[in-house]
Amino acid sequence: MGGTNIKAGIVNEDYQILAQKSTPTFVGRKIELIVDDMAGLCNDLLSEIGLHIDSIAGIGIGSPGAIDSDKGVVIYSNNFSWEDIPLLELLQRHFTIPMKIANDAQCATLGEVVAGAGIGCLNMILITLGTGVGGGIVVNRNLLVGNSGNGVIGHMVIRRNGERCTCGRRGCLEAYASATAIIRETKKAIKNNPDSILASENKDIELVNGRSAFDAAQHGCTVAKKIVREYIECLGEGLTNLTDIFRPEKIVISGGICNQGDNLIVPLEQYIHKHCFAGRKLVIPKVERAILGNSAGIIGAASLIDLNEKEVV
Amino acid sequence: MGGTNIKAGIVNEDYQILAQKSTPTFVGRKIELIVDDMAGLCNDLLSEIGLHIDSIAGIGIGSPGAIDSDKGVVIYSNNFSWEDIPLLELLQRHFTIPMKIANDAQCATLGEVVAGAGIGCLNMILITLGTGVGGGIVVNRNLLVGNSGNGVIGHMVIRRNGERCTCGRRGCLEAYASATAIIRETKKAIKNNPDSILASENKDIELVNGRSAFDAAQHGCTVAKKIVREYIECLGEGLTNLTDIFRPEKIVISGGICNQGDNLIVPLEQYIHKHCFAGRKLVIPKVERAILGNSAGIIGAASLIDLNEKEVV
Repeated sequence: MGGTNIKAGIVNEDYQILAQKSTPTFVGRKIELIVDDMAGLCNDLLSEIGLHIDSIAGIGIGSPGAIDSDKGVVIYSNNFSWEDIPLLELLQRHFTIPMKIANDAQCATLGEVVAGAGIGCLNMILITLGTGVGGGIVVNRNLLVGNSGNGVIGHMVIRRNGERCTCGRRGCLEAYASATAIIRETKKAIKNNPDSILASENKDIELVNGRSAFDAAQHGCTVAKKIVREYIECLGEGLTNLTDIFRPEKIVISGGICNQGDNLIVPLEQYIHKHCFAGRKLVIPKVERAILGNSAGIIGAASLIDLNEKEVV
Repeated sequence: MGGTNIKAGIVNEDYQILAQKSTPTFVGRKIELIVDDMAGLCNDLLSEIGLHIDSIAGIGIGSPGAIDSDKGVVIYSNNFSWEDIPLLELLQRHFTIPMKIANDAQCATLGEVVAGAGIGCLNMILITLGTGVGGGIVVNRNLLVGNSGNGVIGHMVIRRNGERCTCGRRGCLEAYASATAIIRETKKAIKNNPDSILASENKDIELVNGRSAFDAAQHGCTVAKKIVREYIECLGEGLTNLTDIFRPEKIVISGGICNQGDNLIVPLEQYIHKHCFAGRKLVIPKVERAILGNSAGIIGAASLIDLNEKEVV
């Protein structure tokens, strides 16, 4: 479930997506209508590949926000303005097979662990750089989930009293490392440096996106290089903090910004290696791009379902 | 093992300390001499209570720095200037009973979990506010340890490009929340505000300690109140970051500064409750003082020893 679309897929036991389909979320409408559309997507997919619901082991759901997985409830999502939404119960009015729910970024993390860049990792961190900054943390092959809600890494303050964040705090990682943040800095720099290559390449400031500064930096623009460097260093600051706490073998980067590839990954990895505690004396995480793209969430949500459970139920 | 003293204790199966003794560490001397003194302390304690080494289930060691527990090696300690010290192997030249080693702050955390403020907690964070800032994180009743080394929380950057830290980075939690940090800020404020109550109470600036600002704030000094507020907010910033990631039921504060009691704990708890993600919609940690004091490390180190192991060995 995303802010723009609800995506659904049928996944087999080898984590392959056999069919997928999506429909607009239209955030803000009545939750029952959203759940109707979720059920509709499932039925459409079943018809498409000619299966009956009884041959499905279960339904895994990835939702934004803080989730109580035991109760199947979305406790809180600031982007959806949801509080205490019993999503599982509502979907159970449509289907009676096993269902599980987890946070969307955590589903994407699970997806990369079972079938993507994180295969074989005992400890791994996935960070998603999109409108916001989300992520998932794997400790000893298990997702880190606390007493309730999820391992929120986007709202780690890295610059006390810094930029205002949507969450209300100041100086969160999200306020520096999201696509939204680099777009903000790019627009600011264009206004302040009308003669720069960056400005000349972005005549219509409304079309600026997460790539604009990276592109201009590649074309030699010093203004853009500074934006990119600061962006990578802030992201590196947050990931170094997490490295010191978790010592993962791998940090996997997903979301739109990860399309920058080595222009992002190489300096980011250097920054973390240079600044993490005790330098190279301890395990140093590799930094890699996620490889499953949008499929990670679907595969990870599917992996929530225990394939042995069906027989028992 | 501390920077000033090596402390040793004999602990029974109910986590009571039957006898304890300490001797100066004299950091910087040959490691074999330090280990000789560790062994000497053990033998002295055995004589004192009239026990033979064979009635001891094992020896648990808490050491500063990043530890490889499997190999029994101190990988790195910046305060001790140690690298790859095979501490367990060296102590095994003196005794042949089972031995385990872990980071000192993590031992203190275990101590509070098995016999102190953290009894019954599934998820808990302990933070030690002393010369540096150390800590331990308990997830599902297990200490969080990564692939190597330990969950370093003192070097989480909370103010990018801020105060220089002993670790080399800038803006670490330790550079704002250690006793060293509040002493630095107190001295600075005395110099800048010679007419303040704080200055009048601390004529000899060399005697300033971690209590000085708290004391003057209690006496109504506005300069000192500002130092205390900033100290608590920085500490709160770091602990809010950790709350968002781990959602512990409890945060336990230890080290010299925790003697400030409610003057520290009450505003600190308020800060965390106000700023943690999704406010009160998720589990909100209680903030409490550690209750075992210096005994926590000894009890926690002892708890590393599996009481069933002796029969097997």
